[in-house]
Amino acid sequence: METKNFYKAIAPRPIALITTIDEKGNPDVAPFSFIMPVSIEPPIVCFSAAPQRKTLKNIRKTKEFTLNIPSKENLNKLWFCAQKYSGDNKIRDSGLTEEKSIKVKQPRIKACIAWIECTLDSEREYGDHVLVAGKVVEFDAAEDSALKTLLHIGKDKFTISGETISP
Amino acid sequence: METKNFYKAIAPRPIALITTIDEKGNPDVAPFSFIMPVSIEPPIVCFSAAPQRKTLKNIRKTKEFTLNIPSKENLNKLWFCAQKYSGDNKIRDSGLTEEKSIKVKQPRIKACIAWIECTLDSEREYGDHVLVAGKVVEFDAAEDSALKTLLHIGKDKFTISGETISP
Repeated sequence: METKNFYKAIAPRPIALITTIDEKGNPDVAPFSFIMPVSIEPPIVCFSAAPQRKTLKNIRKTKEFTLNIPSKENLNKLWFCAQKYSGDNKIRDSGLTEEKSIKVKQPRIKACIAWIECTLDSEREYGDHVLVAGKVVEFDAAEDSALKTLLHIGKDKFTISGETISP
Repeated sequence: METKNFYKAIAPRPIALITTIDEKGNPDVAPFSFIMPVSIEPPIVCFSAAPQRKTLKNIRKTKEFTLNIPSKENLNKLWFCAQKYSGDNKIRDSGLTEEKSIKVKQPRIKACIAWIECTLDSEREYGDHVLVAGKVVEFDAAEDSALKTLLHIGKDKFTISGETISP
């Protein structure tokens, strides 16, 4: 199979709605599924973004961002956030509701099930993407949030956990 | 919540059984769930490993590795691979069966549902882990493999996809 399709086999992947603000304070939100924990202590999370993404441009200006982990109840609003947008407040226009983060200026998405507030650690180019690493400065989650995490299979196909199994 | 627990909310995560060989040719296999695609073209995958992991030591010596994506049928053997091991052939002793990779020396795990063969691109330290990036040189997957991928919730809890949903 074509090697460039390898990412379809590392799936389904948890999704984060990443909130950022531009230099004027206008908020942005966009879904990313190339995300993973990279260090536990100190806590560092990373995600990979195409270089033209607004999320990346905003992070370069403000050095902060918030990862919001959505459940399936957020799917239609998340899908809006994945489309092209030219207004000035994508969070509002998507129907999502923002609330204040605790440690950073970038808002949280209220209806999500976990929130990871970050300051920029570093960025590095890998091929056609940029890997952004963020120091986790605040973390909150609903109980058993991992059982409700929205997962991306590919294109417009999503899923959530089935039954829990153990060895 | 404690920030170091943030990784529990980026879950459930796809797992890869990463196969490597040491300088004598002895094979090793170990599960990792801090993995993600990082670039599409060129295809690059990354994973994060604690610095003492044998997987990392072997990759430094041989500059190659294979990611094997397991389904739930591999759960008990995967669990064996997650424990301490001091023998000389963990693949054999786990009950897994190896077969030849196409482009690299590190074997594939036969009963898996996708295989991503890599050459080492680079490594970089992030906190208490090392991020390893691999160029994808060969990729194969069973049809609809993403619907069968074993996902790690945490500790001894795993799951697979539930129903597929769309916006």
